[in-house]
Amino acid sequence: MKYAEDKAFKKYEENSIMDGRITPFEDTYYITYIAESHYGDRIGLARTDDFESVTRLGFVSQVDIKGGTLFPEKINGRYARLERPLSGGRIWISYSDDLVYWGGSEVVLSPRPGYWDSHRVGDAVPPIRVKDGRWLLIYYGIKDTSAGPLFRIGAVFLDADDPARVVSRTNVPILSPRKNYERIGDVTNLIFSCGAILEDEKLLLYYGASDSCICLGTTAIDDIYQECAKSEGEF
Amino acid sequence: MKYAEDKAFKKYEENSIMDGRITPFEDTYYITYIAESHYGDRIGLARTDDFESVTRLGFVSQVDIKGGTLFPEKINGRYARLERPLSGGRIWISYSDDLVYWGGSEVVLSPRPGYWDSHRVGDAVPPIRVKDGRWLLIYYGIKDTSAGPLFRIGAVFLDADDPARVVSRTNVPILSPRKNYERIGDVTNLIFSCGAILEDEKLLLYYGASDSCICLGTTAIDDIYQECAKSEGEF
Amino acid sequence: MKYAEDKAFKKYEENSIMDGRITPFEDTYYITYIAESHYGDRIGLARTDDFESVTRLGFVSQVDIKGGTLFPEKINGRYARLERPLSGGRIWISYSDDLVYWGGSEVVLSPRPGYWDSHRVGDAVPPIRVKDGRWLLIYYGIKDTSAGPLFRIGAVFLDADDPARVVSRTNVPILSPRKNYERIGDVTNLIFSCGAILEDEKLLLYYGASDSCICLGTTAIDDIYQECAKSEGEF
Amino acid sequence: MKYAEDKAFKKYEENSIMDGRITPFEDTYYITYIAESHYGDRIGLARTDDFESVTRLGFVSQVDIKGGTLFPEKINGRYARLERPLSGGRIWISYSDDLVYWGGSEVVLSPRPGYWDSHRVGDAVPPIRVKDGRWLLIYYGIKDTSAGPLFRIGAVFLDADDPARVVSRTNVPILSPRKNYERIGDVTNLIFSCGAILEDEKLLLYYGASDSCICLGTTAIDDIYQECAKSEGEF
Amino acid sequence: MKYAEDKAFKKYEENSIMDGRITPFEDTYYITYIAESHYGDRIGLARTDDFESVTRLGFVSQVDIKGGTLFPEKINGRYARLERPLSGGRIWISYSDDLVYWGGSEVVLSPRPGYWDSHRVGDAVPPIRVKDGRWLLIYYGIKDTSAGPLFRIGAVFLDADDPARVVSRTNVPILSPRKNYERIGDVTNLIFSCGAILEDEKLLLYYGASDSCICLGTTAIDDIYQECAKSEGEF
Amino acid sequence: MKYAEDKAFKKYEENSIMDGRITPFEDTYYITYIAESHYGDRIGLARTDDFESVTRLGFVSQVDIKGGTLFPEKINGRYARLERPLSGGRIWISYSDDLVYWGGSEVVLSPRPGYWDSHRVGDAVPPIRVKDGRWLLIYYGIKDTSAGPLFRIGAVFLDADDPARVVSRTNVPILSPRKNYERIGDVTNLIFSCGAILEDEKLLLYYGASDSCICLGTTAIDDIYQECAKSEGEF
Repeated sequence: MKYAEDKAFKKYEENSIMDGRITPFEDTYYITYIAESHYGDRIGLARTDDFESVTRLGFVSQVDIKGGTLFPEKINGRYARLERPLSGGRIWISYSDDLVYWGGSEVVLSPRPGYWDSHRVGDAVPPIRVKDGRWLLIYYGIKDTSAGPLFRIGAVFLDADDPARVVSRTNVPILSPRKNYERIGDVTNLIFSCGAILEDEKLLLYYGASDSCICLGTTAIDDIYQECAKSEGEF
Repeated sequence: MKYAEDKAFKKYEENSIMDGRITPFEDTYYITYIAESHYGDRIGLARTDDFESVTRLGFVSQVDIKGGTLFPEKINGRYARLERPLSGGRIWISYSDDLVYWGGSEVVLSPRPGYWDSHRVGDAVPPIRVKDGRWLLIYYGIKDTSAGPLFRIGAVFLDADDPARVVSRTNVPILSPRKNYERIGDVTNLIFSCGAILEDEKLLLYYGASDSCICLGTTAIDDIYQECAKSEGEF
Repeated sequence: MKYAEDKAFKKYEENSIMDGRITPFEDTYYITYIAESHYGDRIGLARTDDFESVTRLGFVSQVDIKGGTLFPEKINGRYARLERPLSGGRIWISYSDDLVYWGGSEVVLSPRPGYWDSHRVGDAVPPIRVKDGRWLLIYYGIKDTSAGPLFRIGAVFLDADDPARVVSRTNVPILSPRKNYERIGDVTNLIFSCGAILEDEKLLLYYGASDSCICLGTTAIDDIYQECAKSEGEF
Repeated sequence: MKYAEDKAFKKYEENSIMDGRITPFEDTYYITYIAESHYGDRIGLARTDDFESVTRLGFVSQVDIKGGTLFPEKINGRYARLERPLSGGRIWISYSDDLVYWGGSEVVLSPRPGYWDSHRVGDAVPPIRVKDGRWLLIYYGIKDTSAGPLFRIGAVFLDADDPARVVSRTNVPILSPRKNYERIGDVTNLIFSCGAILEDEKLLLYYGASDSCICLGTTAIDDIYQECAKSEGEF
Repeated sequence: MKYAEDKAFKKYEENSIMDGRITPFEDTYYITYIAESHYGDRIGLARTDDFESVTRLGFVSQVDIKGGTLFPEKINGRYARLERPLSGGRIWISYSDDLVYWGGSEVVLSPRPGYWDSHRVGDAVPPIRVKDGRWLLIYYGIKDTSAGPLFRIGAVFLDADDPARVVSRTNVPILSPRKNYERIGDVTNLIFSCGAILEDEKLLLYYGASDSCICLGTTAIDDIYQECAKSEGEF
Repeated sequence: MKYAEDKAFKKYEENSIMDGRITPFEDTYYITYIAESHYGDRIGLARTDDFESVTRLGFVSQVDIKGGTLFPEKINGRYARLERPLSGGRIWISYSDDLVYWGGSEVVLSPRPGYWDSHRVGDAVPPIRVKDGRWLLIYYGIKDTSAGPLFRIGAVFLDADDPARVVSRTNVPILSPRKNYERIGDVTNLIFSCGAILEDEKLLLYYGASDSCICLGTTAIDDIYQECAKSEGEF
């Protein structure tokens, strides 16, 4: 994979880049990622057509905005993405005409006191359009324990035309650290995902376990649908 | 002044609005302000033509972005504004085609260890175009003392065509709390400004003192120019 | 004033005692105070009949409970007091049959975001019964500023029979640091009161200014009544 | 188990209830538990006669008091309980005539610098009367490590007539996380107990391991007795 | 005053140098000062014979050691100095054969809970030998208030031959911020001294007030002596 | 091993002693260790000739200095040691003529943003002289993860004559927690070493795993040499 060294990119990526998410969009693939420097964290955007060369397109948020995931199609004529500002532990949505200038931000999802996602939520996998046109968002939730944060995976369905509106949401996680390789590793008790594929009504979820190995979990999309449906009408 | 009650505005302004800055722009006046809610702080935009009625235009940043000041004209065909993200205590610049969607963010000014602005800097007054086409930015700087933060005012000149480039900067503050009414009040040792007028080469700086009264200070623009010139070439 | 040295008292008062409040009760006077030790802060109770000798009665709360003020008569057959737990910055009420065992705790007053008492409230003066049988509570409110906390005084009327119910409350403070001796001193911008007297419909409020001198302020009780009435119906 | 929905209970239990401890008392069973809300944590009391229906009796402490365990009989004519205030990481004792009004609080047990319980101690199992009339208290101790808190279990014997007086105490823990299921789970390296049974001089200790499974450990009461005896005379 | 630019000095002085204290020693004057850089704070040593040129001698402590004041003569054949490590808010003493290598550190003075110097103490003026051969140490003490730290000046007499031994200490400060220029300034409520002169049994104390002006206070050494004597025998 | 009880030692060792490192030096062995008390942490020095009796020699640093490791021979005629001040997470060097008085401190090694040792570095094993006269320093590095610190081991070669000068340094750790017994224990994900032996060009590294067991790892010194050489010239 070619890497075009560029001083401007280095400035805001001096410490690391991480959490790349790939969104198929028409004939290309966009990659949103987090650029980390002493200025703070911000969203970087890149593109690839062939997974052989990648072109950095620029930084598409201020600092203190993390976790960007792009929707795979325009909504009401605009690009849309989910993102996580530093404060509040919430997922927001923003829109753009050109992938560069973003605005129209609204809150989408907040932590729930007393639930498994009581401390923070963040977008994990780029939204996937499912039946009825709704958007399936696989997200992660954090609960604070006396031994540190516990990362787990949940699901939420967003309205087809107004993705800032939550239709239904899992009251329990759909994936939790249970196996030894999910519990034990460089970062204990952590499951973190940046990508999934929907294939024949089956969700293939790729995830990192304890920051030390990469795993694949599968489930019928219909099971997630029914689990979320229990909460329908609460929002 | 009319106030159009609107539920969406209330959501992000539930605690307060503050730090309004007025930028004359062609035939109208834009007001950028900080909207404060439990979601975090973000920039709101409003407009008035006559200072009798004001129209809220919307929120034009994510949360965790504060201190927005709009430039009074387009730069290279785009709207431009200065802003202060939560992290780093720095002033950044962003651009927009329509005042709604913002991007192209770059760092403009950072705190300087060992100086009077060692802890944080923030945009104070909307930039003013001065001779040579340069932009004069009146900003505030904070030094941390054992009795809390000490707010003072400085100046910086930005390049005419690339306002992310600093041309010169005051090594000492141009206004510090000295008078009793600047030292003593609800917030001790604080000078804070959101607006100034350039009249016949004289700067009229309106500022709040110790959060308890409003003051006017004046100086010849040329004095600021010469004070800043001492640092020219350092950037 | 005699001081009966007692080892058990010393244990929980090793650092200081402070914030004594005097409540006239039938033929005697009770003094509630805060005892400060490395175990934490708790409420101590003492009694005097003549202001010549004082008898310590014991500690009447756990640690982490501060600011106790006793009501001057029983309510529904029980002693009642206001108090401030460490967490939440709120005023609570508790009841007792014997001044020693306390229970039935309920929240009375909370901080209000966006108001002058947005950070914390605490009981200041023991409640005073006024016309209609209502209880007048003079309390202090704190707002956090960049130069530290700003202490001011407000008033609230509590229901005659159920003092956990707020009837009306001042939306603005009734006393703020304004004079130099209230602004400047060992603790800047602080007004703190532990006692007041109602005389001929006039309130005589004794207060400390900037922890450096003791002052007396007066106002017609009716003015407080009317100021609070503006908020009636909001609770 | 029937659950009587009640608005007052919901207010202080909005986030969760946890750490229920069951104390047999004459013909009934009392359950002390921690109620968690944004007001803070406080002790709730409930009762059951048959473990089929449970009646909530009310909240029996202020906020900032946690970890209540009731003694199974009156001491010197009063109900007694152990509890843990937010500050200091200590176990205290309080008394009551009616289970509602509590007072007479005293310190019972403090953390010991340099020991396995150097950071915090808390009551685990309701006290059990053993031979000589002494009270056996199974408690937990926390040591802070660079990887977070390490929870372990110890024992202490309290005086029969004055349970605020420690007679002897284990210098080493009697139960530590060692097995994989005690080390690895939602909360790593945690052993936590809320209940035990004394049967034929044998202690049956029920405990949660890493917040992920429930375990039973057994030991002869005499072994605990002898381990504690090593420290007798130190208090 | 000549200033020899030297890269090694710049490294550890990049942010500032401050709190210079001058100690007359035989035919020369030593200046101890605090060098501040992002590595931390450490003690620097310089020398002047004529107050016209100054020679930097080097850094004579690790980082995290502040506030060094040299004794004006050797004690038991060794150089001696007072200093303040980052932790604990205490004054320590160290010794040296050559002013470069320091050791034999012992605690001299600690904060006193409940007193005016309850939060931190630090050496202010280099020790002065007074009658009986004792050492007079003028030090500063800090009390934490809700409006920030309150700096005041106290005195302590140290044993002639073993200066780690406190002979007597003022229970109240000998100088407190009282005047407007001591209360109000860049750093409110601060009195800080780095030097004093003993002349005809009279102490001339030079001090900074609110970090905004320099003052001179005088007192009879005998008054300090008698004030301290009240505490003799307590140590 | 004999233990000479001594009140002065107890004062600064009241909580614990830890992290003993043994340096062979001519005919004897010096042991540097960390003494922990409420005054802070400082370096203690002891000596043994036969590993049957040990003599404490004294405390050889102020508080807030940790992690001392002595070089096994004098450098430029002076004793030398590495140490870690509380602030900055760096390794420093100091020198002494007599093991008691220390000075001449300089920074040796700092954390590197974006690397495995981004949060803190500390000296682990006393330096070992290897071919070319260079010093091999085995050190530990910490990365902060969302589940707490991750301790790993790296190597650095220091210049023969000026050990403050880094010649080369491992860009990746040479030992990381991987095995279950290194991941799981009282302190998860921790590898910590205080000693190693060089035997026939092979390094025998003794280390603690998860604070719960002691392990031995071996490697050819030449492999470390080549791994470090990749970074040569960068310093």
